Order: sequence, then C-alpha cells, then structure tokens
Amino acid sequence: MNAPNPVPDSLVFGSDGLIPAVIQDDASGEVLMLAWMDREAIRRTLTTGRVTFWSRSRREYWRKGDTSGHRQYVRSVAADCDGDTLLVRVIQIGAACHTGTRSCFTDREIPALVGDPEP
Amino acid sequence: MNAPNPVPDSLVFGSDGLIPAVIQDDASGEVLMLAWMDREAIRRTLTTGRVTFWSRSRREYWRKGDTSGHRQYVRSVAADCDGDTLLVRVIQIGAACHTGTRSCFTDREIPALVGDPEP
Repeated sequence: MNAPNPVPDSLVFGSDGLIPAVIQDDASGEVLMLAWMDREAIRRTLTTGRVTFWSRSRREYWRKGDTSGHRQYVRSVAADCDGDTLLVRVIQIGAACHTGTRSCFTDREIPALVGDPEP
Repeated sequence: MNAPNPVPDSLVFGSDGLIPAVIQDDASGEVLMLAWMDREAIRRTLTTGRVTFWSRSRREYWRKGDTSGHRQYVRSVAADCDGDTLLVRVIQIGAACHTGTRSCFTDREIPALVGDPEP
C-alpha cells in the first residue's frame, strides 16, 4: 500500500510541469536562490528533509549538496496564494551558489532608482 | 536622444520573454511574493522607484499598488548567478497579497518533514 501523496492537488504547474521554488535561509532570512521543481521533486522535498530540484539544463533530479556538500535541510515549505510558487525555508550548509557565494544574488546588484514612499 | 537602457544585456529571459522576480521586504526580510517581468517591466522598475510586473493572466503591465494602494517602492534589485531570476527588495505599503495577507505565502504552509543537519 502506497503512502498518501503529500503534494497538494492545489499546486499549479507551468506548461513545462515545473514550479519555481524560492529558497530562503531560515536563520537569516536571506534569499539564497530560485530553482525549479516538478511534482516528484516536491514530493522528495516534502518527505525527506532535503531539498530536491529538477535541473532544467541537465534534465535530471538534483538533490542540493550531493555533489558540492552544500546541502539544504528543509525547515518549512509554503505555497503562494495562486499555488504556482513555493517558498522553502532551509538550513543552508556552506554556499548556496555554485560560484561559491552564500547566495546566488550576492554582489550581483543592478543599479536602480530607489523609490521613496514619502517624496 | 534616448537614455541608455538600464536593463543588463546579461539577463536571460524564458521562451515567453519573462523572468521571475522575487519580492522581499527590505526591512523584515520576509519574502512577499513572486511575479513576472518582461524587459520593459524591468526597465520601469529600475528607473521609476516603483515595482512594475507583467501580468500573465491579464496580459498587461501591472504597477503594483495602482489599484490596491499597496505600492512597492524599490530599494534594490539584483540578478542571480545565471541572470534568469531577479531579487527586488522593497518598501511594501500594506498587504503584498491580493487576499489581504502581508505576504502571498502567509498561512499557506504545506506539511513537510523537517530536515536535521546533525541526525
């Protein structure tokens, strides 16, 4: 007898069968990266305590840290109001980015006009 | 004479011409929402101080807060290592979510096994 499927039926996948997952450091609140999950990657993420993605470039499942050692341990998972995005809070071991920076957004700022709510 | 285009050529758009933008509260670090931008929405976001998306459902530009009053003022914009995701830190006025919750992920947790780095 199979275990019940833990992936909510309410999730909405793209035409490619994928959903974006935002990965946030549970301790610092830093946004570490965004990657993609299909239904099976979500199932593995929800049931194993480790974050698993679907790699669009390599066309394979990718359990974060298996090669690099930079594992992501699941703290919580939430869907958004439309059910088409996931937010995964993690304990991040080492660097989240394959370039060696803590976050994939580190030192990659784009110049922007700063907005002011009280001009 | 036109102003130089502030949108980096290094950004990588999907086959639909869009790129996901993660919106983070600059003060609290909370992840508020994810929405989509095309090149023009990014240009407007970088140059006006207000966050503009491309609405996939309505097929139109959507300057956050114009209808709801729940404006997002840009504090910083960064690309990720692959250039295919943006992280926008904002000052959020009111609720980020159209359902009235502060974040689109509020109260939408999915049960998950919590991982433990030191089992």
